[in-house]
This record gives sequence, structure tokens and C-alpha cells, in this order.
Amino acid sequence: MKKILIINTGGTFSSQATDDGLAPAIKGSAILDCVDGISADIELAAEDYCSLDSANILPEDWISIAERIGGSIGDHDGFVIIHGTDTMAYTASMLSFMLKGIPVPVVLTGSQMPLGVPMSDALMNLHCAIWMAESGVPGVYVAFDRKIMLGCRTSKVRTVSFNAFESINYPYAGEVNAYGLQIYTEGKTPAADFRPHTDYSDRISVLKLFPGMDPGIFRYLHDNGIKGVYIEGFGLGGVPFLRKDFTAEIKKASDFGMPILVGSQCRYEGSDLSVYETGKRILDCGGIPVYDMTEEAIVTKLMWCLGQTKDYRNIRELFDTDLAGEVTLKKTLQ
Amino acid sequence: MKKILIINTGGTFSSQATDDGLAPAIKGSAILDCVDGISADIELAAEDYCSLDSANILPEDWISIAERIGGSIGDHDGFVIIHGTDTMAYTASMLSFMLKGIPVPVVLTGSQMPLGVPMSDALMNLHCAIWMAESGVPGVYVAFDRKIMLGCRTSKVRTVSFNAFESINYPYAGEVNAYGLQIYTEGKTPAADFRPHTDYSDRISVLKLFPGMDPGIFRYLHDNGIKGVYIEGFGLGGVPFLRKDFTAEIKKASDFGMPILVGSQCRYEGSDLSVYETGKRILDCGGIPVYDMTEEAIVTKLMWCLGQTKDYRNIRELFDTDLAGEVTLKKTLQ
Repeated sequence: MKKILIINTGGTFSSQATDDGLAPAIKGSAILDCVDGISADIELAAEDYCSLDSANILPEDWISIAERIGGSIGDHDGFVIIHGTDTMAYTASMLSFMLKGIPVPVVLTGSQMPLGVPMSDALMNLHCAIWMAESGVPGVYVAFDRKIMLGCRTSKVRTVSFNAFESINYPYAGEVNAYGLQIYTEGKTPAADFRPHTDYSDRISVLKLFPGMDPGIFRYLHDNGIKGVYIEGFGLGGVPFLRKDFTAEIKKASDFGMPILVGSQCRYEGSDLSVYETGKRILDCGGIPVYDMTEEAIVTKLMWCLGQTKDYRNIRELFDTDLAGEVTLKKTLQ
Repeated sequence: MKKILIINTGGTFSSQATDDGLAPAIKGSAILDCVDGISADIELAAEDYCSLDSANILPEDWISIAERIGGSIGDHDGFVIIHGTDTMAYTASMLSFMLKGIPVPVVLTGSQMPLGVPMSDALMNLHCAIWMAESGVPGVYVAFDRKIMLGCRTSKVRTVSFNAFESINYPYAGEVNAYGLQIYTEGKTPAADFRPHTDYSDRISVLKLFPGMDPGIFRYLHDNGIKGVYIEGFGLGGVPFLRKDFTAEIKKASDFGMPILVGSQCRYEGSDLSVYETGKRILDCGGIPVYDMTEEAIVTKLMWCLGQTKDYRNIRELFDTDLAGEVTLKKTLQ
């Protein structure tokens, strides 16, 4: 008998129509009623953590959820988190770091249409998440549209279709076909002495470059106690260095000990600072490459790293390390 | 006999290996040599505007290129712009606004591998761009990987593969098959009194939301003369309004007359602020919807609109208008 705990946080999955538009309302007990008896070998329990549109989920919620799961691993064989789709990839990414080494499955799911609405994907996604949680395969995953994705590789790429999520630059961890749930991974290696590591800092900034952007923003970031920056650059990771000079700002910040990560606005195939002159200048100035990580994984890894260390070199090393499957390192190109 | 002018700006297309990595070097005359004699019915000319990695292309370059083209329409039946891929979608989008109503084709192209390298896509892309420029179909386009895309709908989505660009939320304008170039559009309606409109303001900011982001950034934007902001929100266009309240900042800025645009980080299927409570709050606070536009089109349209008017209501109206094919308006949902 496998014991699975469903933690409900709200989102479209549990939404109902209100005068102000769709808003989360359905409780965990009602969700449980829809899947109770799914299998004689699974004992389900459900609890409500919150009832929020995931645009309103904040880092303090990541800590609470990670601690709730970490504190009750002995009592459960797997966990399902029902979560709004809007920030699910951020939560899945951060939980991958906070729960690194967890010995059981943690599976986030949600839906594009609310539970109980005809043609909704909610029940299908929940079933898929429960079966993944039952599998015993350790790690943090997202179950959506009959696919299982490694949590720290997911992004929401479509706003309306049922296949809202993709596993970016990484194969699926599993999928549902006519034989049921097929799992293609053995999961992440459990840590012998697993416990959640929930320290983080939200004193970070994301700069999405556009032509003509003023590098003067760095003064504000520095004056306002920002501890790390992710620059979403162009193409393989380029930033301007003529007329508007971002590389000079990267050098100043790096010399001062502030980690500046540089990646790409392009969704697929990752960044590589070793190919073009503009990328090489960034490396020379102390910019830190993020390879093929998603923006969600970069942001949450930066927050998490700043909770573990304040040292630029340690953070650089952590970004040159695959912690939870979030990055494909291309060291040979450096 | 059709006269086509090729304007070379640099980019990977014209790059050569240097000790500092790939950097633009090949001149327009050498490019011309590769395609001269393409057809007895086409007379090609080439000139060099600059030789830049497109990470270094700035708004002042957009003006120069738009004025060069606008000032020589009588002398040419079509224009090809060779451009780095990194910011090509930004340039194509801005030229769509600056050259709105142009009676001839303007076709941007570039490549993922430099001209002359074995297996390069450079010559194929240039051929495709020249044939589109020869077609007489008016408007601003991108030719890449045998596809013709409306300029203001393109994004670079892949950093390495030849199909680097996609036409986002919009059908292709044409493609090459075994019959040659097939064109699926009659083009944009030419203006009787066409002239370039190159006024713009780069006093804008892009805020890419992440959970835990501090809305205090709005104070900096206001104090530093920023005239308009694009918030890349979550999902259909959500922003936090509990604990970290971005809707209050949107209201303050809008009341003050600063346009705040709100869209989605999701690449496909656009935003819709009329579905969820969080979106409706944004509309109530004066936030301006961007529907299914690309980030590149949003940023350049905002810059361009701020060059035409300083009035919040006029800008709101311009964003509720399809100027160049950049947006699918969903007024029925409002």
C-alpha cells in the first residue's frame, strides 16, 4: 500500500467562476473525492496549503511547501502538489533545489480548465501525477498533458492549449500511452542524509535586454542591495558592448563580487558564450554562463545559491555544477 | 528588370573567425559576387551600412536604415537587409512600424553559419530574401530557412538550428518548396503618401516578472524618466496582487499617465486579461493588454508610439489598433 499526500495550493485546477473572473475555490477534500478509490494499492490523503492563483505564489510559499514535504517523508511514499500553471515551472524548479536528494517522488500538476468543467484536463493530469507519485522514482517532476517532465526543465510555453508545458532542452521523464504510464528515468539519486535546504535570497534582478536599453540600471541594482543578476541576452548569449556597453557593467559588478549570469532570450537550444566575440567578452568580464537552463531554473537557482553562500566564486562553481538535472554543461567548449 | 538593393549590416552571415571568436567582416561587394547573375530580370546592388554583431545594433540604426530605404524607394523595387540573427526580430518589428505603408518589399535575412562555410544556410537565405524582394509584395518580412515571415511576428526561438525563427501566432507569409517561392499574402496595403515615420523614444523598460520580485522597481523607473513599461507577466497575463502588489503600481503609473503594457512570458498563444481575476484587476487599474504580440513587437511598438504621442489614451488606442499585422485583437472578450 503506497501512501500519497495531495497538497492543494489552488490555481485553475481548483477555480470556479466569480464576478471577478475565474478564482481558486475548490478544496482538497473535494479534489480527493474525485480520485478516491483510484487503486486498492494507493491510500490518498489531501490537505489545503492555500487557495491562490499562482501569480500570487511567493518564495515564502516554496519554503513552507518544501518544509511540509521534508518533515513528513516518513509518513508518505510520494507527494502531489496541485498548483496554478502560471508559476508552476518556478515552484517546480525551486523545489528541485530545496528538496535536492529527496528519496521519494514530488509531482506538481494543475490544469488549463477547472476540475468539473466538461472536457477539462484536470482529472487526467491529477491521475497522471498520482501514478508518478506512486512510482517511487525519486525527484521533483511536473505531470501535464500525459507527459512527465523533470521539474527544473519545465516552462509554460502555451497559454491556452492543453500541452502548455514543455521539457526544455531535455527528454521527457515519462509519458502516458495505451500501456499506461511509461517512465524513462530512474530518478535523481537520493541523499543518505536528506533534509530540505530552504535558505534563499530574493534580492535578485532579471534584465531582459532590448536594443537601446540603458545599462544605467546597474547603478540602481547596486544601490538597492541586489545580490545577483540574470541578464537575458540575445541569441547564444550576446549583450551590447559598443555605444551601450553592458560588458563594462558586468565587469564592474563581477569585480565587486556580484554574480552576473548571462543567457538567452531564445527558448530552445541554450546559450554558449564561447562562440562569438560578444560572448567571449562576457566571459572575460566575469559573466557566468547558464548553458541550456530555463529562465525559471536560472532565477530560482540564483535565489537558492545566494541562500547557501555569498561568495562569487562559490556561486560561479554552483552554476558550473548540475545540481538537479537543470543544466547540460558544455565544459569542452570553454 | 527589377532593381534590388542589398543593405549589409553584418552579423553571422558576414562573419569570419578571429582570435576573439566569430566577428562580422565580409563586405557587401563580396556578398554581391555570390549572387550576381541570379536572374536576367534582377539587377542587384549592394552597400554596407555597418559591420556589426546585431547585439550592437541600436535604435539609431533602425532610423538610419528606415531613412535610407524611405529615401530611395523610387530607385529600387525591393530591399534586402542582411542582419545578425540576435536582434533581427527587433529590427524587423521596428521597421514594420517606421515603414508602415511602404509600397515595396523590405526583406531581412541572415544566417546561422557564415557565408562561404560548408553547409552554411547563408546563400539559401539570401536567395530566398532576394526572390521575396523581387515579388513586389509590399511590407517588411524576414526570410529564413525557406520561410517568409511577417517581420513584426518573428522571434528567434532557437540558438543553433537553421529554423531559428518562427512566425509567432501568425501564419507564414510564404515558403520555398520544389516549385520555388510560394507567397501566401498580398502584402500590407501601401500608403498613398508613404514616408518613413522614425520618431521614437527609448525611455522604456521591460520587467520580466518572477515570484518574489520587488514592485519597488517602479520608483526607480519613475524617477529616471521612463515613459512606458512592458510587464512580461505570467500565463495569460497575470501579475501578483497579494503580498507583493503589482496591480497597485500599475494603477499609480497609469493614473500618472505612464502606459503600462501587460503580456505573457509564454511564447505561444498570447495573453488575455479578461479571463482570470488577476487579469481583470490589471485592466481595472489601467494596464494595457498586448494580446498575442511578440515581445519584440511590443517593445518596438511602445518605443515608436512614444515617438508619435505622449498621451496615455492615444498610446492605449494605438495598442488597440493593428498597425502592421503585429496583433490579433480580441475585442469581443473585453
